[in-house]
Amino acid sequence: MSLLDRIDSPADLRRLTREELRALPAEMRERLIAVCSQTGGHIGAGLGVVELTIALHAAFDTPRDQLVWDVGHQGYPHKLLTGRNTRMETLRQESGISGFLKRSESEYDTFGAGHAATSISAALGIAAARDLNGESFKVAAIIGDGALSCGLAYEGLNNAGHSERDVVVVLNDNEMSIAPNVGAMHKYLTSIQRNPLYNRVRRKLGEIADNAGVAGTLLRRWEESAKAFFTPGVLFEELGFRYFGPIDGHDVDLLVDTFTAVREMTGPRLVHVVTQKGKGFPAGEHGEKWHALPAGHDPATGKQIAVSSAGPTYTKVFGRGLTELGAIDPRVVAITAAMPSGTGTEEFAKAHPQRFFDVGIAEGHAVTFAAGLATRGVRPVVAIYSTFLQRAYDNVIHDVAIQKLPVVLAMDRAGLVGEDGETHMGLYDIAYMLAVPGMTVTAPCDGRELLALLRSATLHDGPFCVRYPRATVPDAVPPTAQIDATPYGTWDVLRRGKEVAVLAVGTMVQPALAAADTLASEGLDVTVVNCRFLKPYDEVTLAALLAEHRQLLVVEEGTVVNGFGAYMANVVAQLEPTVRVVAHGVPDRIIVAAPRARQLARCGLDAAGIAERVRALHESEAVAG
Amino acid sequence: MSLLDRIDSPADLRRLTREELRALPAEMRERLIAVCSQTGGHIGAGLGVVELTIALHAAFDTPRDQLVWDVGHQGYPHKLLTGRNTRMETLRQESGISGFLKRSESEYDTFGAGHAATSISAALGIAAARDLNGESFKVAAIIGDGALSCGLAYEGLNNAGHSERDVVVVLNDNEMSIAPNVGAMHKYLTSIQRNPLYNRVRRKLGEIADNAGVAGTLLRRWEESAKAFFTPGVLFEELGFRYFGPIDGHDVDLLVDTFTAVREMTGPRLVHVVTQKGKGFPAGEHGEKWHALPAGHDPATGKQIAVSSAGPTYTKVFGRGLTELGAIDPRVVAITAAMPSGTGTEEFAKAHPQRFFDVGIAEGHAVTFAAGLATRGVRPVVAIYSTFLQRAYDNVIHDVAIQKLPVVLAMDRAGLVGEDGETHMGLYDIAYMLAVPGMTVTAPCDGRELLALLRSATLHDGPFCVRYPRATVPDAVPPTAQIDATPYGTWDVLRRGKEVAVLAVGTMVQPALAAADTLASEGLDVTVVNCRFLKPYDEVTLAALLAEHRQLLVVEEGTVVNGFGAYMANVVAQLEPTVRVVAHGVPDRIIVAAPRARQLARCGLDAAGIAERVRALHESEAVAG
Repeated sequence: MSLLDRIDSPADLRRLTREELRALPAEMRERLIAVCSQTGGHIGAGLGVVELTIALHAAFDTPRDQLVWDVGHQGYPHKLLTGRNTRMETLRQESGISGFLKRSESEYDTFGAGHAATSISAALGIAAARDLNGESFKVAAIIGDGALSCGLAYEGLNNAGHSERDVVVVLNDNEMSIAPNVGAMHKYLTSIQRNPLYNRVRRKLGEIADNAGVAGTLLRRWEESAKAFFTPGVLFEELGFRYFGPIDGHDVDLLVDTFTAVREMTGPRLVHVVTQKGKGFPAGEHGEKWHALPAGHDPATGKQIAVSSAGPTYTKVFGRGLTELGAIDPRVVAITAAMPSGTGTEEFAKAHPQRFFDVGIAEGHAVTFAAGLATRGVRPVVAIYSTFLQRAYDNVIHDVAIQKLPVVLAMDRAGLVGEDGETHMGLYDIAYMLAVPGMTVTAPCDGRELLALLRSATLHDGPFCVRYPRATVPDAVPPTAQIDATPYGTWDVLRRGKEVAVLAVGTMVQPALAAADTLASEGLDVTVVNCRFLKPYDEVTLAALLAEHRQLLVVEEGTVVNGFGAYMANVVAQLEPTVRVVAHGVPDRIIVAAPRARQLARCGLDAAGIAERVRALHESEAVAG
Repeated sequence: MSLLDRIDSPADLRRLTREELRALPAEMRERLIAVCSQTGGHIGAGLGVVELTIALHAAFDTPRDQLVWDVGHQGYPHKLLTGRNTRMETLRQESGISGFLKRSESEYDTFGAGHAATSISAALGIAAARDLNGESFKVAAIIGDGALSCGLAYEGLNNAGHSERDVVVVLNDNEMSIAPNVGAMHKYLTSIQRNPLYNRVRRKLGEIADNAGVAGTLLRRWEESAKAFFTPGVLFEELGFRYFGPIDGHDVDLLVDTFTAVREMTGPRLVHVVTQKGKGFPAGEHGEKWHALPAGHDPATGKQIAVSSAGPTYTKVFGRGLTELGAIDPRVVAITAAMPSGTGTEEFAKAHPQRFFDVGIAEGHAVTFAAGLATRGVRPVVAIYSTFLQRAYDNVIHDVAIQKLPVVLAMDRAGLVGEDGETHMGLYDIAYMLAVPGMTVTAPCDGRELLALLRSATLHDGPFCVRYPRATVPDAVPPTAQIDATPYGTWDVLRRGKEVAVLAVGTMVQPALAAADTLASEGLDVTVVNCRFLKPYDEVTLAALLAEHRQLLVVEEGTVVNGFGAYMANVVAQLEPTVRVVAHGVPDRIIVAAPRARQLARCGLDAAGIAERVRALHESEAVAG
């Protein structure tokens, strides 16, 4: 029986010998690689924290002690050790194990997360609740160094350090961006710091300083400066943390000893652990590609087995088009928040390095920085996933919209996002963007239109957003130079019929056309409109539609609450109250992981679902009439 | 002729002698106090930065050089020196000088702001555009120490420090929270730092270190540690800034010399200036009250002349009620983002200090921290202005709503906010909250109902928000213990009529009733409903209304795009398409400063406006019928 098979919970882990603990990582890596080669997933982070996860569960009394994992990408080894090993084959599958951490999935998942940098704030909240309730468990947040570029992490550190509460932050540094020098001397320094004598002396120095006026101030400053000399963690010390590290994140013994000692202390403390992302994967690559793995890899070689034959993604088309646009229009610059590959802007970065800005996981800064650029004649295109742009909503309103600045917001992964699940859904952008005065809101129906709208966007003198899905484009896309800008504020009537007009947004145009074909064969002749501009809408076309139709069905891949359907219902109620507007979108509930096609079908957002809605609408009118 | 009268622009200022520059602050303070005593306004910050403003315009070549003022509260002295002195009596008046900075008002206002911590990001954007355009001006952001608790400021610092661009950050430290010890030694250290020799030596050390391998690393660390000993700015140095300070922010000569020297350098640099908020105001008070001054003060004594006789504000009622609720329910805690007075939570803080959390200007952290608390049985009430909660939209979705945690969001200043103008409008919360799955959205019609909804909120097992205005309550509010919770998801039919039913939200209930009285005298008998629960809406009452009415007018103090009106239009289109729903809210444009009553009237959101809309609706139906 393998070691891993003997672990049903961390309590079993804590019964292993040190020797067994040292042997466990190899087993866990083998298991993770086998699982992810089959299911796909964000394997890189998980492989890097195998020893860290073992040590945390060995040193902390989980689930009584609360581990708060940031993002959740790092959570796969944690799942292996907390009773979910046998179900790992269902990872990221419908009704299976989530690709992130999830409170409803396990009592060991203390706080769910899919976005970065929430863990310190959440851990501090848990620690404060513990203190209010008179409880005595320990709390540790585990956060990656990349998330430290996010302001939310800083807000959490700033509050935690100031609070003097008993809370541990584990900095999982897998990019070595903070401390490049890891070696014997640091290990030595860490062992000094964990030494009770050192801590007693240090506390004593503090007491003397507190009671010694000006001389004390100098003494304290000298102590800080001495500490700054011996450790690179002075930044964290300044924020009120006791700093430990950097320590080797693949040395099980060192990790267990450190966390066992740190757990016993009180006050805010930060343990800086250096790990290697993707450690142990046979292909041995590094960098951004390591972040995630599509399903269908050979676990022995790390090579992909099946290559999808579908067309390029919207992301890819956007990246290529933006790069070409950058060559045509020297005012255009590209901004990403730590996702050059994920947003397709890496191509722009290669072609126009001076005009490319990766600001880190800092969406708010990205948008305000873009607004600053826009005040000086530059045309910034900020490419951010719809779900992450929620973090910059105030910046969109306060810095861009109120000042009417020409910032282009490219909202990738808008709509249903498949296996990434609830934390990554791009279902709210239509609702929250339509509410912003002066914001142009658009959605293309294919790759060519994406680039046409991008041209319109960079020509428009004001805020402009364009949303596109996590999907492949249905068309072959010519070079940007051959694509004209979409005329501002226009719709495109693709099919003229009677009775019911389907107003389709973006990804819904193709299925609406397919539905119209089906309905035509049934003798029901409907109109299909590509509403590529959601705001401003096409007043002329709408007026014509209202004159010829009694019912409008608005179809969109976004929440049905206050999306484009509600917007149109509101508009039409003023213009022509006898025309009925029905919104057909994603139902008002949290949508969980499943293949995107199935999510769409379940929401009735495919050709069959749209046809059914049109039929029902048509019949209800026939009854009413 | 006074000195101030001779200054039409900073060019005039730069022609003054040092002696005249030293005499100018007294004149400017006198003028500011005279103006604000009459107009009201955020005078505290402005009085603190008089010398700083003089020095910046003296040392920098404005308007070619770009000064980016954070928030804009500090902007009054800047307005005095940039051609707006003679118009200062119109401060915060309709069509007058804005209480904040505004690009459309002056070429010296390079970037508008009302919310904190945007200035570094914007300044970096301006600097990047300059470099792309091959221009050569200087850029300086001026930011308060309070704003440094905001993650956006950190994101800006982190990017600016890393960028190595020519950009200056001026830290206006008026709370002395960073460096309590200001004195001769610091002045001396600063003069050392400004000394070209010191900087040459330091650069030389850096070059040696770069070329010296391991020994170099030690040398660099030693240099850093030595610097940490001599200056408190090591945190900023770690973020990539050259740090200067702290310097006395009321010493004109020192300031002018420092900025003149710093301006000539390149790379990211931070000047730490210590100022005294409210300096020179006769009453000489300090602290949060100093933040703003209502109109009608005696400039000689600082005492308020006229005291308003209106009832308590919603803020005050909320603060009292929450405090009482805290005594009844020990699970309740209060969280504010740096506004204990502004949100009324200071009363709770006094009564329940252990259960009160001021997290600084960190709205995102406030909400995620609350979510952490809520996982452990605590019932957090997060009190944040509607406009500032835009900064925590992702935290609301990602940390609260997806996890269905019982966090109460108390959204103060929802709706039109009067003289604070466009940056502070609370017009989007209904739209952005309705779109969140599982979020309960409510609005009280008076003070008693505010507390009743607060009781409902803390009893509800899920996310709950309540919005209330910048206004006084219309009623006398009994103690919380005597107020029952509002039954969940219910409306209240206040008046039963025919034809038109007015669905009124929150502040619109009283004017809707008044409109109904007027209309009744004209023979038009309307129904008035208090829609205190926007989501979930009252299905039973709505069904009854749909059976008895042909038209619904939804009235709300929020954007007409995708507010409650659009939500209802969407719902009713499904349930009973023959009933017409018309939304009546704030028009879809940026609303500028004016008295709130006038803003309401102009939007038709008073009794007369509502009556007019009902009449028009009724007549259109009569014609159509």
